[in-house]
Amino acid sequence: MTSIVVPMPGNREIAGLLAAEIGAETGELLVRHFPDGESYLRYETPVEGKSVVLVATLDRPDAKILPLIFAAGTAMDLGASRVGLVAPYLAYMRQDKRFKSGESVSSVHFSKTVSPWIDWLVTVDPHLHRRSSLDEIYSVPSAVVHAAPLVSNWIRELVPRPLLIGPDSESEQWVAAVAADAEAPFVILEKTRRGDRDVEVSVPEVDKWRGRTPVLVDDIISTARTMIETVEHVRAAGLIAPVCVGIHAVFADGAYAELKQAGAGEIVSSNTINHDSNRIDVSSLIASAVRHICPV
Amino acid sequence: MTSIVVPMPGNREIAGLLAAEIGAETGELLVRHFPDGESYLRYETPVEGKSVVLVATLDRPDAKILPLIFAAGTAMDLGASRVGLVAPYLAYMRQDKRFKSGESVSSVHFSKTVSPWIDWLVTVDPHLHRRSSLDEIYSVPSAVVHAAPLVSNWIRELVPRPLLIGPDSESEQWVAAVAADAEAPFVILEKTRRGDRDVEVSVPEVDKWRGRTPVLVDDIISTARTMIETVEHVRAAGLIAPVCVGIHAVFADGAYAELKQAGAGEIVSSNTINHDSNRIDVSSLIASAVRHICPV
Repeated sequence: MTSIVVPMPGNREIAGLLAAEIGAETGELLVRHFPDGESYLRYETPVEGKSVVLVATLDRPDAKILPLIFAAGTAMDLGASRVGLVAPYLAYMRQDKRFKSGESVSSVHFSKTVSPWIDWLVTVDPHLHRRSSLDEIYSVPSAVVHAAPLVSNWIRELVPRPLLIGPDSESEQWVAAVAADAEAPFVILEKTRRGDRDVEVSVPEVDKWRGRTPVLVDDIISTARTMIETVEHVRAAGLIAPVCVGIHAVFADGAYAELKQAGAGEIVSSNTINHDSNRIDVSSLIASAVRHICPV
Repeated sequence: MTSIVVPMPGNREIAGLLAAEIGAETGELLVRHFPDGESYLRYETPVEGKSVVLVATLDRPDAKILPLIFAAGTAMDLGASRVGLVAPYLAYMRQDKRFKSGESVSSVHFSKTVSPWIDWLVTVDPHLHRRSSLDEIYSVPSAVVHAAPLVSNWIRELVPRPLLIGPDSESEQWVAAVAADAEAPFVILEKTRRGDRDVEVSVPEVDKWRGRTPVLVDDIISTARTMIETVEHVRAAGLIAPVCVGIHAVFADGAYAELKQAGAGEIVSSNTINHDSNRIDVSSLIASAVRHICPV
């Protein structure tokens, strides 16, 4: 069965890398908008009898969903044998329970909206908080790619004398794992409460770490609030500008500039979402997952 | 069974009119966006055990669909007895066949995306071209409201000595019907071809109609191309500025200003889509349809 990788708008680059990895052709899908705001789609490459791999990263998801559904539905209408979705960044993973009465549990409704249109799903590090597996939310077969080993590699190879820094005790397990793989030490910021609104945050044994390059790591950089605060604490402690690494470069409006301004050094991300900070290519890991879930 | 009318963002006014007509309360649904562009919804009025009437007009539809699905799904999760959708303007009615190979037939995919979330659908004058009924596209029970009688009433009562004008022979049947109800005469523009690119368009028996107020009527005013050309022909024929009536005031970017500039007189629409030109209130007709499809 021939596979064809079809990028949704804005996904041409990672789709091309993925197609090269799995040895598939890249298909052309024209997506444009009518003057009334409706979307028009047309496959310019035949998909009949092919296994279609749609590539659509789903940050800022709301306006992307109908075109994605139309792309999947049209592929099936045109005789595709299977339609899978590679969503390097998967949306609506956070609202996975009703925190307040009346709230929508959007992660479930989102998966129910998308699932009927696809045969399988591959994504990179979904933000699973209260769920242990994507299978609890998605009924279609799914595979999850973990970018942490690539992040550790990048740090080990390109950061001189790295020191991993975790913003709080909750982050310890994850920071420790990345540090171990990067063959680097790590510290967790220490909070000393001196009053209701007065919390001192310090870098433990700070003198030991002078001459090290602080490295902050998070899965998603969205508003970058936590990272900005951590950068400020690290700079206040007299360490050099920290390297900031995020897997998913969501970067809400202004967040990238604010992080720079707070004193971040290099800002680095994987290419799950197109951004100037992309340095870590996850396409080979995605390719492995696609080969696993949808054998050619 | 108690009904509750819940407006999606931007639909408060027509939802309020509808609630008053059917004697239902109006519910509050908070919809906001997270900094990463995802939508957050919360019902601030209880919907448990109630028949929920969501009101969402669907011009510029792509970004509106996930919040609408979340609203419908959440209402069911919270114990609503039924969830219906009043879409005064219904999207994706035009692409109802594959005109070119590879194209999406979005009307079908759109209905399949929305239908699983609702128990019934009411809309006003959907753009049914090649289909005779909404039932050919939507699997849920639906009712269609026809605004033409209100348009005719408005013309009869508020336009002095109206003359309905149809842009071409295709429009004749529809223009004739509106004219009859408005108790007004009508003419169809006449095309005389004088060469490949030279078509003269004239108002037949133009001298007979001086002193009349020309009235142009269409179901959707989007780019307004046809209406603008018709206005130009009518003005060139020496008649006064025509009243332009559309049921759905979609008005693509700049179209309203262009229509004014072309020499239109008053521009009038129904309130299916919020617009300054709204003059004709369709809420009582919608209420009748809702009472019919979802008896209280």
